[in-house]
Amino acid sequence: MAAEPVSHAAPPRGFPVAEFERRTRRAQGLMHAARLDALLLTTEPEVRWFTGFHTRFWESPTRPWFVVVPAAEKPVAVIPAIGAAAMAATWVEDIRTWPAPAPGDDGVTLLGACLAEQPARHGRIGLPMGHETHLRMPLADFERLRARLGARELVDCRDLLRALRDVKSELEIDKLRHACRVASDAFDALPGEMTAGRSERAIARAMTVDLLRRGADAVPYLAAASGPGGYDNIISGPSDRVPAAGDVLVIDTGATFDGYFCDFDRNWAFGHASDAARRAHEVCFDATEAGLAVARPGATAADLWAAMWRVLEAGGALGNDVGRLGHGLGMQLTEGHSNMPGDGTVLRPGMVLTLEPGMEFAPGRLMVHEEDIVIRESAPELLSRRGPRELPVVA
Amino acid sequence: MAAEPVSHAAPPRGFPVAEFERRTRRAQGLMHAARLDALLLTTEPEVRWFTGFHTRFWESPTRPWFVVVPAAEKPVAVIPAIGAAAMAATWVEDIRTWPAPAPGDDGVTLLGACLAEQPARHGRIGLPMGHETHLRMPLADFERLRARLGARELVDCRDLLRALRDVKSELEIDKLRHACRVASDAFDALPGEMTAGRSERAIARAMTVDLLRRGADAVPYLAAASGPGGYDNIISGPSDRVPAAGDVLVIDTGATFDGYFCDFDRNWAFGHASDAARRAHEVCFDATEAGLAVARPGATAADLWAAMWRVLEAGGALGNDVGRLGHGLGMQLTEGHSNMPGDGTVLRPGMVLTLEPGMEFAPGRLMVHEEDIVIRESAPELLSRRGPRELPVVA
Repeated sequence: MAAEPVSHAAPPRGFPVAEFERRTRRAQGLMHAARLDALLLTTEPEVRWFTGFHTRFWESPTRPWFVVVPAAEKPVAVIPAIGAAAMAATWVEDIRTWPAPAPGDDGVTLLGACLAEQPARHGRIGLPMGHETHLRMPLADFERLRARLGARELVDCRDLLRALRDVKSELEIDKLRHACRVASDAFDALPGEMTAGRSERAIARAMTVDLLRRGADAVPYLAAASGPGGYDNIISGPSDRVPAAGDVLVIDTGATFDGYFCDFDRNWAFGHASDAARRAHEVCFDATEAGLAVARPGATAADLWAAMWRVLEAGGALGNDVGRLGHGLGMQLTEGHSNMPGDGTVLRPGMVLTLEPGMEFAPGRLMVHEEDIVIRESAPELLSRRGPRELPVVA
Repeated sequence: MAAEPVSHAAPPRGFPVAEFERRTRRAQGLMHAARLDALLLTTEPEVRWFTGFHTRFWESPTRPWFVVVPAAEKPVAVIPAIGAAAMAATWVEDIRTWPAPAPGDDGVTLLGACLAEQPARHGRIGLPMGHETHLRMPLADFERLRARLGARELVDCRDLLRALRDVKSELEIDKLRHACRVASDAFDALPGEMTAGRSERAIARAMTVDLLRRGADAVPYLAAASGPGGYDNIISGPSDRVPAAGDVLVIDTGATFDGYFCDFDRNWAFGHASDAARRAHEVCFDATEAGLAVARPGATAADLWAAMWRVLEAGGALGNDVGRLGHGLGMQLTEGHSNMPGDGTVLRPGMVLTLEPGMEFAPGRLMVHEEDIVIRESAPELLSRRGPRELPVVA
């Protein structure tokens, strides 16, 4: 690789305490309306959103981590002792630890006691149970915990959490914008790495290294796929396949800055492009334009889908196995709504999402294009640098 | 960074079909003994172990993925349509898809039907519910699924899965060895990156880039921490802190090759080292030696702990918040047993694990050392290149 790439000035890391106070106050307002005595959180983005606790140690499946959000007080951390010092560096003050791992009682007693302390005004505790959520603790431990809750009911609080997280603060958007800018620069530079004989894997590796050197903290997601005249899926690679003349290559990446993701892709043809592939790329570009035109406050996610799908269908789409044409974006690679029929999520200023028109343009041949945007009062703000209408051809 | 680092020859990717057949046969033998009609799997390592399905798309929380292991037939994939082409490239033949995301019925009906098809000989289906496991599907969907199972009981199959995965095949060990070799080389080269004024974050970034250039596929885990005379935790960094003279820096990494992890750390002092830090490093080295001497077939994980803790305690350990002195290693950064009191796991040839002696050697000052090994018939095989006894000092 050539000289060190120029890196953009990065926004500050973390958030002021006032942002966590605001988040918690808003949560407690919604909890009151939903008649919840507390929230119980077990997953990384939820714990981080309320506390600022930021570690890659979640990669280890051994220890569960819990945060309880009371009806009126600050969040309480119920966590393995190994995390005490890191949690103490956040705004959280009430930190209760146990010496994990302890398979016989991995925090269940401690968590049960913490929940029992919460004043039982409504007899209901919120736990994310709906779409896109999971419970990050052993199911057998959960059953034990449930037995300790007595008459208290656990109810799904997924919609409440979405209502809190769908609209991003400007400080969050600064992080998302930076992740997208770094990835835009890396995508722009990538054709220089596509020299003859290099495999998908080698190209993807060069992209990952470049993302890091330009200021990404991590690259949790990077997929690459290629094939003659088009690729047949967008999630399985990179492989050792070496793109040949006439191939189309797609790379899709989710790189992070301070725990916030970009998520967009770019396509290239090697040597020359078939008419069908070039046309499909233009159709996807035009579909994105249609999405951008509709992406205004008050429109729904289903409206975005309809605007983009109309263009794709008129452009010869045979189908779309992705199941949607974009989605919410933030602390997770995909989060929140889906641009698809039936998703009535109303767009509001500050929502961050992807426009991801894609289609099977010939049997077993896909074209998928993606951009990241913020909904603003009028036209949306592009976070990713808009890709070209014409399918780029690399020599 | 200097010239392209020399990379070791990488072992082949993937596994021959015979390995998946063997795994499935072994599983079905244990299922028969445990009176299970089928296994239901929802998490990445479990799905990959049985099918070879390997994608970073699990990073997206939107879609659940299911694999059913029947009592006698090949595994059945019940997955979102977006994964059909990638799953079709594995040895799995029975692939059932639905157009996900479909929040109203995200595979529940399809999965329920697949489970209902399994001959009900015992009336029991295995699902991982114990230590270190979680259910990767919305809890509300799980309740709907359970209602469809009728009289069929879901029982914990965590121990069965551990029995299958604890001993690695030589093909798996080849991948683990390669990941460890790449990380050993990167650790050896890292002092060259520790120039004056560089932050923990800059050093950690250089390490990540180097790991990738040497042949790691991804670096899902990399933590760094430093402090005057020692660090106070091992999971929260890297931060923008710039190590100063007298500081100790630790870097711990979990890099992968073909989906298999290394997990070990190294320590350095900047400029000069305190006597206490130097002594603590030697004690950790000696504790590892004690662990290596005990790491033989027939010994238990608790024996490993006792041998290492004896050395740490004699060396002045005030405590250890990590909660254990190492753990199993493989497709996950941490998996299987823990080297701790009460863990009676008996070591067998082919088990891969870390020896991770660590201690608080002064109030708020930790020293943690880690190596990766394979249990063999006699002495263990070191996968990581053995670190030095003396705490390295970088200028």
